[in-house]
Parts: sequence; C-alpha cells; structure tokens
Amino acid sequence: MKREFERSSRLRSNGQIVRFSTYPNVKRSFQNKEFSKKKKSLILFFKLKHNVYFSVLVRPKQFAKAKVNKINMNNFSIAIHGGAGTLVKGLMTPQLEDQYKTALNESLEAGYTVLENGGTSVDAVETAVKLLEDSPLFNAGKGSVFTAEGTHEMDAAIMEGKELNAGAVSLITGIKNPVSLARDVMDKSYHVFLAGEGAMRFAKDSGHAIEKPDYFYDEVRYQQWLGIKDSNTFQLDHSAKKEGKFGTVGAVACDQNGNIAAATSTGGMTNKKWGRVGDSPMIGAGNYANNNTCAVSCTGSGEFFIRGVVAYDVSCLMEFKGLSVADAASEVIHKRILKIKGDGGLIAVDANGNISMPFNTEGMYRGSKTSKGEKYIAIYKE
Amino acid sequence: MKREFERSSRLRSNGQIVRFSTYPNVKRSFQNKEFSKKKKSLILFFKLKHNVYFSVLVRPKQFAKAKVNKINMNNFSIAIHGGAGTLVKGLMTPQLEDQYKTALNESLEAGYTVLENGGTSVDAVETAVKLLEDSPLFNAGKGSVFTAEGTHEMDAAIMEGKELNAGAVSLITGIKNPVSLARDVMDKSYHVFLAGEGAMRFAKDSGHAIEKPDYFYDEVRYQQWLGIKDSNTFQLDHSAKKEGKFGTVGAVACDQNGNIAAATSTGGMTNKKWGRVGDSPMIGAGNYANNNTCAVSCTGSGEFFIRGVVAYDVSCLMEFKGLSVADAASEVIHKRILKIKGDGGLIAVDANGNISMPFNTEGMYRGSKTSKGEKYIAIYKE
Repeated sequence: MKREFERSSRLRSNGQIVRFSTYPNVKRSFQNKEFSKKKKSLILFFKLKHNVYFSVLVRPKQFAKAKVNKINMNNFSIAIHGGAGTLVKGLMTPQLEDQYKTALNESLEAGYTVLENGGTSVDAVETAVKLLEDSPLFNAGKGSVFTAEGTHEMDAAIMEGKELNAGAVSLITGIKNPVSLARDVMDKSYHVFLAGEGAMRFAKDSGHAIEKPDYFYDEVRYQQWLGIKDSNTFQLDHSAKKEGKFGTVGAVACDQNGNIAAATSTGGMTNKKWGRVGDSPMIGAGNYANNNTCAVSCTGSGEFFIRGVVAYDVSCLMEFKGLSVADAASEVIHKRILKIKGDGGLIAVDANGNISMPFNTEGMYRGSKTSKGEKYIAIYKE
Repeated sequence: MKREFERSSRLRSNGQIVRFSTYPNVKRSFQNKEFSKKKKSLILFFKLKHNVYFSVLVRPKQFAKAKVNKINMNNFSIAIHGGAGTLVKGLMTPQLEDQYKTALNESLEAGYTVLENGGTSVDAVETAVKLLEDSPLFNAGKGSVFTAEGTHEMDAAIMEGKELNAGAVSLITGIKNPVSLARDVMDKSYHVFLAGEGAMRFAKDSGHAIEKPDYFYDEVRYQQWLGIKDSNTFQLDHSAKKEGKFGTVGAVACDQNGNIAAATSTGGMTNKKWGRVGDSPMIGAGNYANNNTCAVSCTGSGEFFIRGVVAYDVSCLMEFKGLSVADAASEVIHKRILKIKGDGGLIAVDANGNISMPFNTEGMYRGSKTSKGEKYIAIYKE
C-alpha cells in the first residue's frame, strides 16, 4: 500500500499523471520495460490533446478497484542459504541432514513471520541470518571455523534496496551476531564498511556484547583446524576433500511494500591467515540489494566472487539487459563466474517476490517461502 | 602481437574461422558490437556456401599486411588522478599549483615510459601510483592524513584486465608503497583482499620494509588533524570547508598488447575511526579492470561509491549496453552516482587506449598521455 503511494507520488512530481500506476493490473508490472513503454506512449497522447487529469476521469472504475485490491498486491517472500559446495551424499547421515533442514526451517519461518506481520525486508533478513549464526551447523557466528591463530574472524554485510543503504563488518571477533553489527554500521554510522580492531571499537561503542571464545568452540571445527593448522593450507568449510564447500549464510527478502534486502555472514576459511577478507562483506561482490533489480546473497570461492563482482553482476544483467532475476542469476552462476573458475551459488529475489537459487556445485543448503504458499527446503541438486 | 594470436585462437575454438580477425582494420575494432555483427553475417554467408577456410584463401594480401602492421597497432595510453573535490581557486597559490602539476607530470611520464618501452599496464599503473604515494602533496603513502588515533591507515588496490586478477590491502600502517603491497597480494597470495594486522603480517612475510611514523609526518596534515581531533568530525582531504576534496590517487593504463590495468591508493579521511574502509581497496567500487570493457580508478565520497559499485557500473554499461568508455564514465559520474548524492570523479581507459576523466566536483588533479601524442595535465574544470 505504501509502495503504491510512493509510486504515485513519483509520477506526480514527474508529470502530474498519477492514476495509471494504480490500476490493479499495472501496479507491480510498472517496472516491466515493455509494458511501461506501451503505457507511456498512451499517456503522452492524452497529454498532448487533453487535460492531464483526463485519464483519471474516464476510468474511475478501475481506479476504485485498485484501491480495494491493493492490500494483497505485493507478493512477499524470503530465501535463505547456509553455504554451497561439494556435499558428497554418502558423508551425510540422515540424522545430520534432518538437523540441517530443521535449522534451515527455523530460520526461514522466523524471517517469513516478520514479513507476514508487515515487517520490513531488512528486519526479515537480519532475523533469518541471526538464527543461522546461532546454529553451530553453519560457518557463521557461533559455528565459525578457526583461523590460523586459533581464533574466529567473522565478516557480515546487509543492504536495503530502497535507498541503497548498506553496512558491513570484517575481521571481527567475539560478536554473537555479526549481521546485527553490520546493521548498526548501516543505521548508526556514516560509514558502510568497518574492519578489524576499529570495527570492534565501534561494536563496543554501540553496546554489542563480546562473547568469550568458548561460545564459538566446536569440537568438529577444532578437529578440522588441528588437521591443517601447521600447514600453509586453508580450507573452505565442511569439505570432503579439504576444500569444496563454502561456509557462508545469507538471506534475501521482499516485503509487503515491495522493498527488498539482502544479508550475508561468514566465519571465513579454516586456518585462514593474513586478515583475508572474502566476498561476504563486500557490497557488490557477496551481497547487494536494489529495489529496481534484485537482492542477492552469495556463497562460494570468495576470491572469484570478488573478481566477478557477482552480486552486482546479477543486478546489472537485469537493469541493462532486461533479464529476469532467474535468467540473470543463472547466467552469472552457470556461465560468467565459471569463466574465471569460480564455484558456488547465490540466492536472489526481485521486488515482485520472485526467487532464484542457482548453484554450480554439488549442493547448497537452501530454503524459500513465498506469500503464494510455496515452501521449499533442500540441500542437493534436485 | 600476443593479443592477436589470443583472439585468433579464441575464434578457432568457437568456429574454425580464424583469419578475419587479423585483418588490419578488423583487429582492435573487433570488440565493437556493430562492426562485429556486420562481419559475422559476412562470415556466416561464406560458411554456408563454402569451406570455412575460404575467406583466408581469397584474401591473403590483407592477412599478410596485418602481420607487418601489427606491432604498431595498439594505441597505448595512461591516465592518473590525485583526488577530486571542491578545490576553490582562490586557496591555491600559483606556486602550489606548479608543485601539483610537476608531481602529476613526473608520475605520468614514469608510467608512460614503462608503456613506451613495451612494459605491461600493471607495471605502468604501479609505477605511476608509487610516485604519487611518494609525494607529500597527495593523500596516499607518504602524504596520508592522520586517523583519530593520530596514526596513518592506508588502503590500496590493483587489478589487471586480461585474467581479472586483483590484489587489495586495507588498514595498513607504515608501508611506504601500499600499491606494491596490493600487487604482492595479487601476485604472491591466493587471496584478493587482506586487511589490518593480518595484512601487516603478510607485508612482513613478503619482505616489505616498515617505515617509522615520522616518514609519514607532515605539518599541514598534522594541523588539519589537530583542528578536529577531539571532535566526532572526520574530514576528507585538502578541504576548503572541512570536507569536499577526496584524497585518493590512481592510475589506469592500456599497454602495447591491449592489456589494461587500474591501481588506486589512499590515506583515507582525516580523523577517521572505527577501521573505516572506503571504496579504494574494494574491487568493483573504487578500482576495476577488464580487457573487454575498461580499467577504472575512482576518487570521491567513498561510502557512496561503494553503494553505487561505481567502477564496475562503468564496465557493465559498456558490456551490457554497448556504451563507449566516455559515455559510460560520464553516465555514472554525472547521473547515476548523483542520484544517491555521491560526488567525485574517476579515470578510465579501454583496450583501444581511449581515456575518459569525468568528475562532478569543482576539480580533479589529473593527467593523461597517449601514444598518439596527446598529453594533458589539469586541476580545475576546463
């Protein structure tokens, strides 16, 4: 409803032609290029010959209809991921698979409930990612892997698509929910990206509690690290072959006002050193949102996703080439990122609530739920 | 020459039609969309009617010509910047203006000499940026401004457009030439982006000397900092109104093989705190290079350049909308970044050596030189 009025007033300031955008069938498809062209030429014709309000006067019935229907007009939806990679089926027990699916379901439902209650997409993605960070199963927050120094260094980012505001943190330690710290950077600082010790000072200044190292301790992660800690090897999370699965979590959402948002959080690579920063906290690479195109959260071989500017690549294919979110996301994951040998996946949503979740690996922990009643949780290719 | 063969072999693997791309007049303009379409239809016609090698057989003369001319075929060029902002003419003395122009000229000539001697674009941009870092006039390297803690935190990035390799560092201290550390990240590590203390460990591991703080001491910078150090204000470099000019340096170049590269380096904002990371070290935001489109180095209000993913935006406008480097760079600086209230400028070069240097501020320290004999150094709008 709010979005309707915004769109109307935008038109009003441009050319005083208001009512066309509130036709029930015009509403969300106004962003569709071809449709927009067609309607615009019609508008111009009337403008030249008649009073600019003419269109309102001749079609009052449709306008009245729009008013009634408009509450149900915005499809809302959410998608989440818990990382992608070479998930060999044999290594997964049915019990473990259940645990993963249960954790994904809890995150998905919590995020969806925010949207269902009329909350913002930013609140929804933060809520969903916080729950994934609180699970020891995923490489983010509590489940973060060990660095070469035996510590935990985490990265996170959040972006909203209406005003293109964003916040990101990198190389932070002891923070229970890095995504909420990223949100505070977005909401409470002039900056977009804070890192390292400085970001920790910001965390303390803005009242974030610092957890003790044992909060992040996990026997499986510790054994992973012990296996390679004296080598120069680093390891992407949960790997069958010491690399292959990318430990990142993320969420994208479209709310009832048609505003979209994306959030991403990661514990990096086991045994990583030198203050390596991956794609997750980089706006445009691992995380991006723009109401005009899509909201994206990536998981993959971070260095390649940075070089491919993957999240913004999906957005540009939609904006400049007119692709749908599904075609743009697929083009990037199945063609463009493969050219530079990057592997992984992404989740994306557009402002009509359409979701896409492509990956070029064996599997990706993922889930989605829409206001149309569709719900989906999966790990492997299907 | 090398580039010719690459292009030929790419065509060979696609469709066995090799020789057209080595016609003298086809060569560099092969990337031009319209031309490419025209020639491709010609190729298809012959392919349908004749053997695929037919075109080679009927036009041997042109092919021979291409071989002879090809050494001189690639225009090479370089552009540099030393920051953009509200440079009020009255505040600049003729002596100081001379100093700036002399420093820009030295950097430009050093980079150009690398290209003239057949060096790579990566070497050229590193050489040019190192000299700007060594000057106390610009906010990078030696001339870096003071942080809230009275220290110097520097960021830098470098990227090459052939393989899309990149390196970046952030929040580093005591390094004489941050751009060379970024280059080492690109050349000697598996990673793209290292930050903070970890990046300093990498610097020591790869043999970078650490300068003492007095190397970076400058009376003007110190007074700038003293003026605001006890406030919550931070200040972009060289400002007339305590903000307005953006202290960043950068270079973009196209070498004789048609390979392009970009490098960017900065000392951040006076009195900055919380480990703020700007756009300069972020691939896609402040720095980007891709032989198929352009190499870009930005200078501006970093947070807005991150949210606008500015450098990759220029590249996408070229790749997906077919704009020239000049039109794409202008569209981004004069329209797209202004929509989110970002100000600053950028320098860009394409693989034909065409240069563009738009800015939406009062001035930008800048210079360019091409193998066609054009040379240009300027500060204000002209």
